[in-house]
Parts: sequence; C-alpha cells; structure tokens
Amino acid sequence: MKNNIRMHRYLLLSLLLILFASSNAVAQDALPSWNDGPAKKAILEFVAVVTEKGGKDYVEPAERIATFDNDGTLWVEYPMYTQVLFAFDRVKELVPQHPEWKTTQPFKALLEGDMKTVGAAGMKGLMEIVLATHSGMTATQFAQEAGTWLRTTQHKKFKRPYVECIYQPQLELLAYLRSNGFKTFIVSGGGIAFMRPVTEEAYGIPPEQVVGSSVVSEFKVTDGKADLVRMPKIDFINDKAGKPVGIYEHIGRRAILAFGNSDSDMQMIEYATTGEGPRLGLFVHHTDAEREFAYDRKSHVGTLDKALEQANANDWIIVDMKKDWKRIFAFEKEE
Amino acid sequence: MKNNIRMHRYLLLSLLLILFASSNAVAQDALPSWNDGPAKKAILEFVAVVTEKGGKDYVEPAERIATFDNDGTLWVEYPMYTQVLFAFDRVKELVPQHPEWKTTQPFKALLEGDMKTVGAAGMKGLMEIVLATHSGMTATQFAQEAGTWLRTTQHKKFKRPYVECIYQPQLELLAYLRSNGFKTFIVSGGGIAFMRPVTEEAYGIPPEQVVGSSVVSEFKVTDGKADLVRMPKIDFINDKAGKPVGIYEHIGRRAILAFGNSDSDMQMIEYATTGEGPRLGLFVHHTDAEREFAYDRKSHVGTLDKALEQANANDWIIVDMKKDWKRIFAFEKEE
Repeated sequence: MKNNIRMHRYLLLSLLLILFASSNAVAQDALPSWNDGPAKKAILEFVAVVTEKGGKDYVEPAERIATFDNDGTLWVEYPMYTQVLFAFDRVKELVPQHPEWKTTQPFKALLEGDMKTVGAAGMKGLMEIVLATHSGMTATQFAQEAGTWLRTTQHKKFKRPYVECIYQPQLELLAYLRSNGFKTFIVSGGGIAFMRPVTEEAYGIPPEQVVGSSVVSEFKVTDGKADLVRMPKIDFINDKAGKPVGIYEHIGRRAILAFGNSDSDMQMIEYATTGEGPRLGLFVHHTDAEREFAYDRKSHVGTLDKALEQANANDWIIVDMKKDWKRIFAFEKEE
Repeated sequence: MKNNIRMHRYLLLSLLLILFASSNAVAQDALPSWNDGPAKKAILEFVAVVTEKGGKDYVEPAERIATFDNDGTLWVEYPMYTQVLFAFDRVKELVPQHPEWKTTQPFKALLEGDMKTVGAAGMKGLMEIVLATHSGMTATQFAQEAGTWLRTTQHKKFKRPYVECIYQPQLELLAYLRSNGFKTFIVSGGGIAFMRPVTEEAYGIPPEQVVGSSVVSEFKVTDGKADLVRMPKIDFINDKAGKPVGIYEHIGRRAILAFGNSDSDMQMIEYATTGEGPRLGLFVHHTDAEREFAYDRKSHVGTLDKALEQANANDWIIVDMKKDWKRIFAFEKEE
C-alpha cells in the first residue's frame, strides 16, 4: 500500500517534469548572448533542418559531429596564445632545475625579459621553449601543472583567470548543439594535454573529445605505478591541413558543423563543409577592440585573411564579434 | 480539446514505459551468457562498488572509462587476424591495378597460394602487404571497402561473416557497463580505420571511441571535395607499450576497467590497474577448442604467456572461455 502511494507520487512528479520540460523549451532563447542577425539565424536554421525527423536534411544523431577550434574561437588568444604564456611562466619556474637556461638562448633572453631577442628566435626558438617546458614529467604531473596554471593565472586585460576568458555565446552554442543531439569536439592547434585538464569544467567537453597537437610520450612503470612520460619531441601538429588528419584519427567521421577563427582553420572547415548533405562552417571575426580585441588580416596571432576573402564564395558564416555577440564573457556586467 | 486527449495519451504511454523499464531492470540477469563463477562475480562486484553513491569506491560517471582489446577479446582472431586475411584478399582483388605484384615477393607467393614463402617473409613482408593494400585511396573509400569485406566475408570455421564472429558475453558486458554509466572504448593493435566501419553496429561503440594502429594520412581537395588520402607509411602502432600511449592521446584519462586476451595487452591492463581507487583488469583465455579455439602460451596469434604467469600476483582476472562463457556467439543454438 505504502509502495503504491510512493509510486503514484513518483508518477505525478514524472508528469510534472515532462510538462515543465516541454513548455520551457518553447519559451527560452537557447542563444541569449547572440544578437539577432544572419549568424544566429543560420545556426538556428541549420540545427532545425538537421534535427527535423523525416525532413530531407535530417541527420542521424550519431553523425551530428561539431568541431570547434579553441584559441580565438572558444577562449581568448590575444595578445598572445595562452599556451605560449604558460610556457614562458614555466621557464621562470623551472630555471632552478635548469641552470643552463641562464646562459642558453632563447631561454636567457626570456629570463631577462628581453622579448625582442625571444621574438627574433622565431618559431624555432618558441618550439624549443615549448618542448623544454612540456616534457620531462609524467602525464599526470603535466595535467596538474597546466590545470592549476589555467585556473590561477590572470589575463592582463580582463583580470580574470584564463579558464574564465572564454566566450559566453560559444558556451551557449555548445550547450545548444548538445541539447540537439550533437557531440561537440575541440580541434585545436594547441597542445591536447594543455587543454584537457579544463575543457570539461570550461566547456562541458570531456578530454576524450579534445583533439590537439602532441609530444611523443612513452609508457613507463615506476615503483609499480604505470604512467606516460612526456618526451621533448613533437608527435603531431594539429593545425592547418593537420586538423582534418587529427579529426580522421580521433573522431573517424566528418563533422557537419565546424567553427574556427583563423586561416589555420580553413582546412577543418573545408573538410566539414564539402561533405554530403547540410553543412555549416563558421569563423569568429574579432572586431571588438573595446570588449575584447580587434584583429584579422595582419595579426601575429589568429590571422584571418584568406578565409575572409573566400567566405562568401564558400557560404562560410563570418561571425562579427561586435555585431553578433550581445555579451562576450560571463563575467561582463549585464547591460 | 483534441490536443488534450493527445497529451493524456502521451502521458499514459510515458507512465507505462517507466513502469515497464523499472520492473524489467530488477528481473533480468545483465550477463546471461556468463556462467556464475569468479569472473562474473568480480565484474558484478566491481560495477556495484564503483556505482554506489556515497560508497568509498564510488567513481564519477565521467571517470568510468573501460578499454577493450579487439582481436581475441571482442572478435575472433584465430587461426589468423581478421585484418591480415582482409589484406590477403585485397591483394587478389587489386592485382589488375598492380601487375608488378605478380613478380614481386611476397605478393607473388601470396597470389600463387604459396603461404610458406609468405610466412618466411615474416613481419616485414606482412607489413608490406598490409601497407600496400591499406593505402592509396581516400578515407571514405577505405571505410567502404573494409566495412563491406567484414560484412560479407565468412570465417572458415563458423561459416558466418566476420562481423558476426564476435563474443556474445562481451556484447552483454559492454552494454551492461554502458547502462552503468561507463564509456566503452576499443583499444586494439589492429587498424583504427579497418575496425571503425563496423564497431557501432557490432558493439555499439562509435568510431570516435575506437583507438588503433594507423597509417599516415594527408588532407587533399579533389574537384572541390575534401578528404584524407591514406599513405603507405605507418603512423602509429597501437600495441603493447603503444596501447597506453594511444589511450593517453585519444582518451586522455586512465581506464578503470581494461579487458584483453594476450601479452600485448599487459601494458594496457597495467596502465588501468595501477591507478588510484578500484580497478579491474581481465584477460580472455581461449580454452574452448570445440566451440571456438584453444590456444595460449605458444600460439602464433594472441600469445597469452606472461600475463597468465603474472595474473595472480596482480589480481588480474583470467576469464576461462570454456568455463565462464555459457554461450560464445549470438548465432549459436540455445541449449
């Protein structure tokens, strides 16, 4: 008898939840930080057609793969890629264990704050710094270091930890896609192991849905405990034409929606948008010098040039940050 | 009014579904093809403790990662790895486009059915055959070829397509783990692109949850359509100490349950079982010459030797196919 009453209560609760959920879905704007305009319209229409059962553009949930670049698409990349700043900080922190850095370039210049010399060392010098600071420890140790740094180090302009310098409209878009049966992936030129410690808390994207650049790692058992040890050698650069390769390796299917912000994302967008059926390719255009930054064709990070040129011809959507985004960060004051 | 009636019907249906689902869950044995014994007991107990909210061994759903080897663990590998047979068949199929194979070893021997000479060419010769037959086409083409072959080519002993020569107890285990919040992954020495076309239909495991060996691939746009082209060069061998490397790259976290069947799986099992908290490592032991095959220490495929030796000391579970599995294949007649 008691069980019967409990069951009735349970069923009543279920009914209320069903009713509430359905009425709620109609009333809410899923993308409140997006202004009405062509970008928002294109997104809503795309999601509507691929989820319309029986419609000619219907896509099975399993094939609703969305790939997002990270730097400049999901989190801030200006005036310098977050991971490069992490590498610079690590040099300062690790120099007691590496006294040779005090006399070796480009480490010496970096320690002396001589950024001109660091810059002159170019990509080769930068790669040396990144490799030296991203290897020589276990996978577990590196994850702790990267995670702690991202949670505690502040962006100079926003005075907020890097893990909070992420775009609110994109968080809404990721959640909206997932609530429509999409599986969301990060496909970044950045280090896979650098991003993973925070992607779940920041974006709701679990580590296994993050694709990125990597160093070689080796399996090692120390005192009966197995782990990977990170080696000072590039394994894979997941950038430009490497992005579709990373997608093929990690995901094994073509995305139907891809979102980037620079020329380095063009191949990822092409890989998605030249598939059969409905496809959507988008680029963030950083146009808001006040609320964030304004940069594109000649920028030293996140160069957006050819993609801007070719967007129209390819039906790629250019998302104008200033016009299309009502609110950029969650920490911004509400208007 | 009409809408109201429809809503009532919908709610009634929901209630029935809820009632049916809950009564069903209690009554059913989740692993009907497993005999009662130490292996089944260990699995059920492990799943019980990691899912017991508030229990000392509780594991958050996100961390419930399970990794399964494929050859000999999920599908038949005896008397020869499925992918090798696929490569052999492909040589015969592709020879019109490769007349040079008729005069080049080990292709010549293979075409003449001289398996002794093919065998004498060893791993190097085998790798030549695999690379030659797994490259030179797009990712899309290769997926179609592998999928069709697996669905249509029959295993000599079982007279069933390879895609059906999969172990029923493992299908039940995969489904049972997933219904308890686990995410199930394949981590195989076999080719990632060879398995992926059928893993969803065979095991309920989507392509993005398959980790395996790979060839180098290159992004290419042909007639306005982007795809990957497979190159005749090994990219990564996901075997032995490579398995934890593959897991680190693809999943980015340590599994809490790992299941293999050979010494090649030892590092994967070690990587899982030496982590903190509750862990379960298992090996299939092929002991059933009648219903499947019996092989272990001296086998030319799926050698299980050191792992058998070290199982006790490491609390690894040895699953004795003959004793522990009531039914091996779905196509077997029910007793």
